[in-house]
Amino acid sequence: MIIVIKKDSPEKQVNNLISWIESQGLRVHISEGEYNSVLGLIGDTNKLDADLISGLDIVEAIKKVSDPFKKANRKFHPEDMVIDVGGVKIGGGNFAIMAGPCSVESDKQIIEIAKSVKKSGATLLRGGAFKPRTSPYDFQGLKAEGIDLLLKAKKETGMPIVTEIMNANHLPMFEEVDMIQVGARNMQNFELLKELGKIDKPILLKRGLANTMKELLMSAEYIMAGGNEKIILCERGIRTFETYTRNTLDLSAIPTLKEYTHLPIVIDPSHATGVSKLVKPMSLAATAAGADGLIIEVHNDPQHALCDGAQSLTPEQFDDVACSVQKIRKALKD
Amino acid sequence: MIIVIKKDSPEKQVNNLISWIESQGLRVHISEGEYNSVLGLIGDTNKLDADLISGLDIVEAIKKVSDPFKKANRKFHPEDMVIDVGGVKIGGGNFAIMAGPCSVESDKQIIEIAKSVKKSGATLLRGGAFKPRTSPYDFQGLKAEGIDLLLKAKKETGMPIVTEIMNANHLPMFEEVDMIQVGARNMQNFELLKELGKIDKPILLKRGLANTMKELLMSAEYIMAGGNEKIILCERGIRTFETYTRNTLDLSAIPTLKEYTHLPIVIDPSHATGVSKLVKPMSLAATAAGADGLIIEVHNDPQHALCDGAQSLTPEQFDDVACSVQKIRKALKD
Amino acid sequence: MIIVIKKDSPEKQVNNLISWIESQGLRVHISEGEYNSVLGLIGDTNKLDADLISGLDIVEAIKKVSDPFKKANRKFHPEDMVIDVGGVKIGGGNFAIMAGPCSVESDKQIIEIAKSVKKSGATLLRGGAFKPRTSPYDFQGLKAEGIDLLLKAKKETGMPIVTEIMNANHLPMFEEVDMIQVGARNMQNFELLKELGKIDKPILLKRGLANTMKELLMSAEYIMAGGNEKIILCERGIRTFETYTRNTLDLSAIPTLKEYTHLPIVIDPSHATGVSKLVKPMSLAATAAGADGLIIEVHNDPQHALCDGAQSLTPEQFDDVACSVQKIRKALKD
Amino acid sequence: MIIVIKKDSPEKQVNNLISWIESQGLRVHISEGEYNSVLGLIGDTNKLDADLISGLDIVEAIKKVSDPFKKANRKFHPEDMVIDVGGVKIGGGNFAIMAGPCSVESDKQIIEIAKSVKKSGATLLRGGAFKPRTSPYDFQGLKAEGIDLLLKAKKETGMPIVTEIMNANHLPMFEEVDMIQVGARNMQNFELLKELGKIDKPILLKRGLANTMKELLMSAEYIMAGGNEKIILCERGIRTFETYTRNTLDLSAIPTLKEYTHLPIVIDPSHATGVSKLVKPMSLAATAAGADGLIIEVHNDPQHALCDGAQSLTPEQFDDVACSVQKIRKALKD
Repeated sequence: MIIVIKKDSPEKQVNNLISWIESQGLRVHISEGEYNSVLGLIGDTNKLDADLISGLDIVEAIKKVSDPFKKANRKFHPEDMVIDVGGVKIGGGNFAIMAGPCSVESDKQIIEIAKSVKKSGATLLRGGAFKPRTSPYDFQGLKAEGIDLLLKAKKETGMPIVTEIMNANHLPMFEEVDMIQVGARNMQNFELLKELGKIDKPILLKRGLANTMKELLMSAEYIMAGGNEKIILCERGIRTFETYTRNTLDLSAIPTLKEYTHLPIVIDPSHATGVSKLVKPMSLAATAAGADGLIIEVHNDPQHALCDGAQSLTPEQFDDVACSVQKIRKALKD
Repeated sequence: MIIVIKKDSPEKQVNNLISWIESQGLRVHISEGEYNSVLGLIGDTNKLDADLISGLDIVEAIKKVSDPFKKANRKFHPEDMVIDVGGVKIGGGNFAIMAGPCSVESDKQIIEIAKSVKKSGATLLRGGAFKPRTSPYDFQGLKAEGIDLLLKAKKETGMPIVTEIMNANHLPMFEEVDMIQVGARNMQNFELLKELGKIDKPILLKRGLANTMKELLMSAEYIMAGGNEKIILCERGIRTFETYTRNTLDLSAIPTLKEYTHLPIVIDPSHATGVSKLVKPMSLAATAAGADGLIIEVHNDPQHALCDGAQSLTPEQFDDVACSVQKIRKALKD
Repeated sequence: MIIVIKKDSPEKQVNNLISWIESQGLRVHISEGEYNSVLGLIGDTNKLDADLISGLDIVEAIKKVSDPFKKANRKFHPEDMVIDVGGVKIGGGNFAIMAGPCSVESDKQIIEIAKSVKKSGATLLRGGAFKPRTSPYDFQGLKAEGIDLLLKAKKETGMPIVTEIMNANHLPMFEEVDMIQVGARNMQNFELLKELGKIDKPILLKRGLANTMKELLMSAEYIMAGGNEKIILCERGIRTFETYTRNTLDLSAIPTLKEYTHLPIVIDPSHATGVSKLVKPMSLAATAAGADGLIIEVHNDPQHALCDGAQSLTPEQFDDVACSVQKIRKALKD
Repeated sequence: MIIVIKKDSPEKQVNNLISWIESQGLRVHISEGEYNSVLGLIGDTNKLDADLISGLDIVEAIKKVSDPFKKANRKFHPEDMVIDVGGVKIGGGNFAIMAGPCSVESDKQIIEIAKSVKKSGATLLRGGAFKPRTSPYDFQGLKAEGIDLLLKAKKETGMPIVTEIMNANHLPMFEEVDMIQVGARNMQNFELLKELGKIDKPILLKRGLANTMKELLMSAEYIMAGGNEKIILCERGIRTFETYTRNTLDLSAIPTLKEYTHLPIVIDPSHATGVSKLVKPMSLAATAAGADGLIIEVHNDPQHALCDGAQSLTPEQFDDVACSVQKIRKALKD
């Protein structure tokens, strides 16, 4: 950490600050500039609260030099992490497509979709059992029954399953789930993250709507600090002023996060855009940008299309997307 | 709800949509425009999922006419709600200042601050026992012990207390707490909101960093739908591109929310700005804009000021703020 | 336009509003809902100022049904527009790569870069003569001399040139320039747009840092309304809260804008990300998402690399990007 | 400026960077940390391009210590600047209310409004002659004729006038205007700013919708660098994700800017909120937060209220606002 001291600060206060920093086990280098003096802190500065120091009267500005995350930091783990989700590998060159309906509705529905997306090349089945809804009056999902239906579809097709958790108390129901998803709204539900750190199961951690990549990495760190290092990051659109799309999909997050972390990164084009027409171009773009996978919503019931999301693809549309995605992957390998 | 149908949409699909809407118990008015036809839906459209309809091929756009929140809606409760927090009234002309330290640290600390802020005119004591921290390596609060210390200070001074909850499982520890705070990061932790809807205790609900006022009202609705209607809303800064301040305090939220809801609104200038120097001007501005109260961080230990937040006031500074706030309130009443 | 009238509005005021609308040459359809009545306006509502109407006491909300842009609207021009820039076609399946240095510095520099990028497959030469700089103390470009140097490079290589204008008074200097660029900061410099509407030359219109796609289309409309319909839109990143990248490149703008307009859309990955490492993945992603072209910064002087932008590629890096872009284009065509 | 060098960077490259910096006339202090080494640059670093340096392979991060603006910097001008606008002082404790219609329409209109707002306490008359409009099909103002009408009203009432410029070529028409306004969309129209730097007349510089305070100060610096130091800054709302208000008025800009600059700061609550109901609470809040003035839209023709902005006040409403503003100012002085 570097601390810039204001010009003409009382020497006594500066010395007090230096003594206090040294009392925390750090060393301090002092450089005198034309307008300011600068303190360079040497040692593990992560235990210092940057906000506190930057609030001192004598402090002009501070700059954190080292990243606040360690277990999620590529500096200390230069190799890509490869995560095994029920036999399917993700990361380090392994690309996975997860597909399935927004909500699990019945065994017929989920098994049909599972078979269909598997045929098109999906290797993981996704489906919502517990649904986070902005309105208390909206459908909240089939809950435990939804998980049972997913497990049936897994048995039938052999596809590992991924579904969202909203409450750490529900963990016992997720015992046979292959990967647990943390939704964007819970990305900083630290109590939930801590509980997920205690289990031994891959976690799909979605970036919050208005969270920076650094905060996403800090949330991964929360889980990893507890012992569970199997984290797959997911970008699903951030909140901006634009109104033609529901959110703004931040694809530059793929190469940027890959510089900072060794964890795999997948993209959710369905929720990011909220419009099925945008799912294909954004899936191709994400693949071209180097994503480790995609998570896509697919419905299978044209007669009741109204009950499926505006962002869901039909099985035919999904087949077309999956096929084009493979073309891109092949082209970039050649 | 109004649904704008695309030009030249197949009549059969339009009729299917109309039949489906009618099957949901709603009536449909059709107006033909030059470029589009428009469906006006009559009845309770809150059960329809707007995203689903707007995703249909034949739909150009939709417009929700009625608000999705009811219990939090001023239309149905024209009078300001007045909430009693351990004997202190907030709302409907009753203005309250809540003050106290970022974290509760010791009985000496919390009792001294409580006495000091009470003398300056604060009527509620705030203090953090459970602390949400971005980093898993930061101090997480004294937890249950912190609540005990707050209760001691309450006993000593008679001030009702407000403190933050992070996990519904902790509710038994909050039995004697007068008002429970839901932090910005948990504003859409729906599982927590549902549990708070089942108790009979005022809730201080903070707006999320990147949540709209409408989403704040929907989160209030979650708690109210469960039966607990004692909600005080709190604006504490939103995330923008500006970097000179930590967040951008949205004071226009005060008169805007007051138009939509009858719930009281308080402002947290300490967290919004992150800088103690800005607390006074923003407290005065919030008061002038019609807030029902303020929640301000105060520390009391100049020798260890480093351990207090950059955004905390000294007791002397707080006394000055509280005094100026009263001048503004008096001026506007005269 | 649809106007939602507040419940219990005085009939006289509603009738006044209806009469006024009819006096503007529009017809009004009235539907009565449970809570509100709704006015459907028929005719050309673009002349009404939406903000004015939505501010009336009796108006709950309004919804514009038709788009405010016409000449830029795909509804009225279903076919993709193909724009000829000095013999190079862009749009409607024609993909163009524009490349060159941030600033034109010398004839040696610009001619060398031009030859090099041409060899790698670039078909247009870009280069800054007039430079918009946030600080008045930064280098402001070679100005007229820079344009002369670009023209020399054009003569030498046969590549059409594109460069930025900052002041309508400079137009005479741009006579032989093949395409004029309007920078992000000038996207709503309406006086400049009006002047560009009077000439007959392709315009590369960059999206402002905080402008919606709708505003971008309205700015295109400004130029087109004057008679010049040769507009190429350019997405170059929008301002968000994220700090790891300079801006957030909004690639969903490609398919979204293509739905609304028939104008070609190109992507500037260099300015969007501000980091050379991100240029390749974002170029590939833009291509996969269906962009009509790319505009990329290239420098050619490794000895003086400090004087080139952090976001510029070396000729070798550019060659690699151009080659991979072609692979993606080929894969998607097969 | 402080440059953090990446761990294990080749010594030769680090030495090259140091030599280059020294060749620019700066001195370099080197501190070695546990993970990184840090270069402290001493001298005037404003001539270095931060983006360029931060893009070097061996550079982990940079931190600018000194502000890039000088003439607008309070460090070098500790005293508040007081600006005289046609005899009315603004800044340094002098508070001014500017009021008038969105557009100047006729001499009757502008003279009536001028008399009315003067009676309520306004000391400057504002009115739009040249109007920046998002759509080329909207009314663009009376232009030169509008300025003539403002001058008539000035003659009639003695109030100095302020009106917006959109094109430096129009400057001759502004000869008798007392203060020239630069609108939000032109805040970074550097060509216009440069021309305004050459004249000797107060400039009201509005913050762009998506511009940081630092960028606002840099734009002030552009004008001041040319010789004209009479700048009044104006905050008028920034673009955020919130949709209940048109923009988010950033009142924390008042105390924050006052720390960085000695220039006066006024607030435009009319354009920030876009809703007349919010003008009063936001005017009071701005006053309480320490603004040096307000700029408020007022219309005077209830019969044709539709032609006035949703954000305009009636003269009666304005009188009420002005009166309450004075109460706040008095309360804070007592």
